[in-house]
Amino acid sequence: MKIKIVTSKKIKNRFTKDAIKEYAKRLTRYCKIQLNVTNKIEKEIKNDSYLIKISNSGKMLTSEELADKTSSLAISGNSHITFLFDDEHYVGNADFDLKISNMDIDNELLLIVLYEQIYRAYRIINNEPYHK
Amino acid sequence: MKIKIVTSKKIKNRFTKDAIKEYAKRLTRYCKIQLNVTNKIEKEIKNDSYLIKISNSGKMLTSEELADKTSSLAISGNSHITFLFDDEHYVGNADFDLKISNMDIDNELLLIVLYEQIYRAYRIINNEPYHK
Repeated sequence: MKIKIVTSKKIKNRFTKDAIKEYAKRLTRYCKIQLNVTNKIEKEIKNDSYLIKISNSGKMLTSEELADKTSSLAISGNSHITFLFDDEHYVGNADFDLKISNMDIDNELLLIVLYEQIYRAYRIINNEPYHK
Repeated sequence: MKIKIVTSKKIKNRFTKDAIKEYAKRLTRYCKIQLNVTNKIEKEIKNDSYLIKISNSGKMLTSEELADKTSSLAISGNSHITFLFDDEHYVGNADFDLKISNMDIDNELLLIVLYEQIYRAYRIINNEPYHK
């Protein structure tokens, strides 16, 4: 499965880069994941990719539900998922709007949380214990 | 105001330490904040401190509601707040159970999110814009 995370906001904090790197490394066993920081959001949205928008007006899922969703997408032949941050630059509709918390969390922290949730989803799908 | 964060789980990731350090630095203008990593959770729970337990069975708040809560506590004379992680080691009741997300988020990431929310709360209380 190929996962693309798209945001228009540059990563400023060193710790965010380090955290993303760590989770990306752990994820190499499970999927191809890439982060695209770009102002040309529209160009990153492809029709053949299932689009999940991270949005405050979205729906909350548990980690298990996100794992189920990822697994169902794979089974139904969706081999690409795109996660979009900063939806203010994208007027189109997403296939799913995902809300992570009732709190307004800093964009970079949400990005780390998303990486961790994708990693957790694969651990759940593969029935692997989650220690770290 | 004095804020104490208590957890029994050692911080393993470098990026978590860096992120906490960054938010702790930003918070020096607003409060005294300390992180205590200890196995003796009970000893850290003082009667004169308002206890907020981070718990999956807790109540979700928005960032504004957490800011209001912090501000109300200060006004009503509670000058100490203790945030407790890893509630499995603490059998007592808390003054408030706070749930951050429906997702099971890694403990270290939740710790960073909490620091960020405390910082955000003070920015809200002081009517300051939140740029970073």
